[in-house]
Amino acid sequence: MDFRELEKKLVAFRDARNWAEYHTPKNLAISAAVELGELLEHFQWETDEEILEAVKDPAKKEAIADEIADVVIYLTLLAHELGIDLDEALERKLEKNGRKYPLRT
Amino acid sequence: MDFRELEKKLVAFRDARNWAEYHTPKNLAISAAVELGELLEHFQWETDEEILEAVKDPAKKEAIADEIADVVIYLTLLAHELGIDLDEALERKLEKNGRKYPLRT
Amino acid sequence: MDFRELEKKLVAFRDARNWAEYHTPKNLAISAAVELGELLEHFQWETDEEILEAVKDPAKKEAIADEIADVVIYLTLLAHELGIDLDEALERKLEKNGRKYPLRT
Amino acid sequence: MDFRELEKKLVAFRDARNWAEYHTPKNLAISAAVELGELLEHFQWETDEEILEAVKDPAKKEAIADEIADVVIYLTLLAHELGIDLDEALERKLEKNGRKYPLRT
Repeated sequence: MDFRELEKKLVAFRDARNWAEYHTPKNLAISAAVELGELLEHFQWETDEEILEAVKDPAKKEAIADEIADVVIYLTLLAHELGIDLDEALERKLEKNGRKYPLRT
Repeated sequence: MDFRELEKKLVAFRDARNWAEYHTPKNLAISAAVELGELLEHFQWETDEEILEAVKDPAKKEAIADEIADVVIYLTLLAHELGIDLDEALERKLEKNGRKYPLRT
Repeated sequence: MDFRELEKKLVAFRDARNWAEYHTPKNLAISAAVELGELLEHFQWETDEEILEAVKDPAKKEAIADEIADVVIYLTLLAHELGIDLDEALERKLEKNGRKYPLRT
Repeated sequence: MDFRELEKKLVAFRDARNWAEYHTPKNLAISAAVELGELLEHFQWETDEEILEAVKDPAKKEAIADEIADVVIYLTLLAHELGIDLDEALERKLEKNGRKYPLRT
């Protein structure tokens, strides 16, 4: 699945439920922050070693994956509202990062 | 670009710079939160109407797109560290959302 | 209650439960972000008008107050770990803000 | 300084600058998240040991203290807008925490 397909599915899902009016830029950005908070909760009192051990449990791994997915979902919806092509934005950002951190040869 | 391609590019980029040791789960989750904070800064004192007006300026739109891309980039790297297939995670989450919010017919 | 009293109570509470080892700077900062996410959840789909209406309900108001308190609690514990006097930090920040945004007379 | 004094100073500061109209619940909560992101940035690639070492430098310690203060400032302003007495909220939360995590004797 690429970002355009994800965007298309998400917009169809929300339009079928008449949620468009709630999907303002601020609400969607706040929603991404709410879900990121839930993701961070999984790491709150654990060391990195404990986290890497914990995700060997498929249920724990799925719970964390769900939170990551939720943040990506709200960011994709936010990009949609702002007319941002996320695929293009990622390509451009990778290019910028390459210029910012050139390889020393 | 799909998530597997994005992941592949990001991991190659970071390995070429020997950054793997910094890419622990907690550091990457914190990094996503830092970038999300920078995204929220664009919306801090603006109304939704002002935000939608502001992104008509290509420079402003690109600045916001960059922040969204940065959050997605760190989440993709985090998923990589945890052995999470983000593409699969998104498909599963969309399905769960469909069950959680069924269409009334 | 001032910040020194709050800090004293929080440190006594956590020491009585042997939680000091979990209270590392990163864990406490992540905890503040988790609680801020829970605070934001109360505002996720509401307009400002709806939020101001909702807090007329004492139960809703207390739920939001609890989340604000939780963020302040974790920040106070973080300041403690870093040897930061939060009272002094606030006085200094207010002074800096006064210089940064001088009154036009 | 206690919370009521802090609140009084902050409200006087903002009223002298005619900023009240921007201080809506959502804007203030977003602002707290922006500042928390800036706080997290200090911890992004550092271990807890490196952070504790870094704050021995007074300039670094002050920079971190400023970010903590900024989050507390926005939360105090948010509490003000919602009619929440932060002092009372903290007392009540400490009491709740005492009941939630009783000491085993």
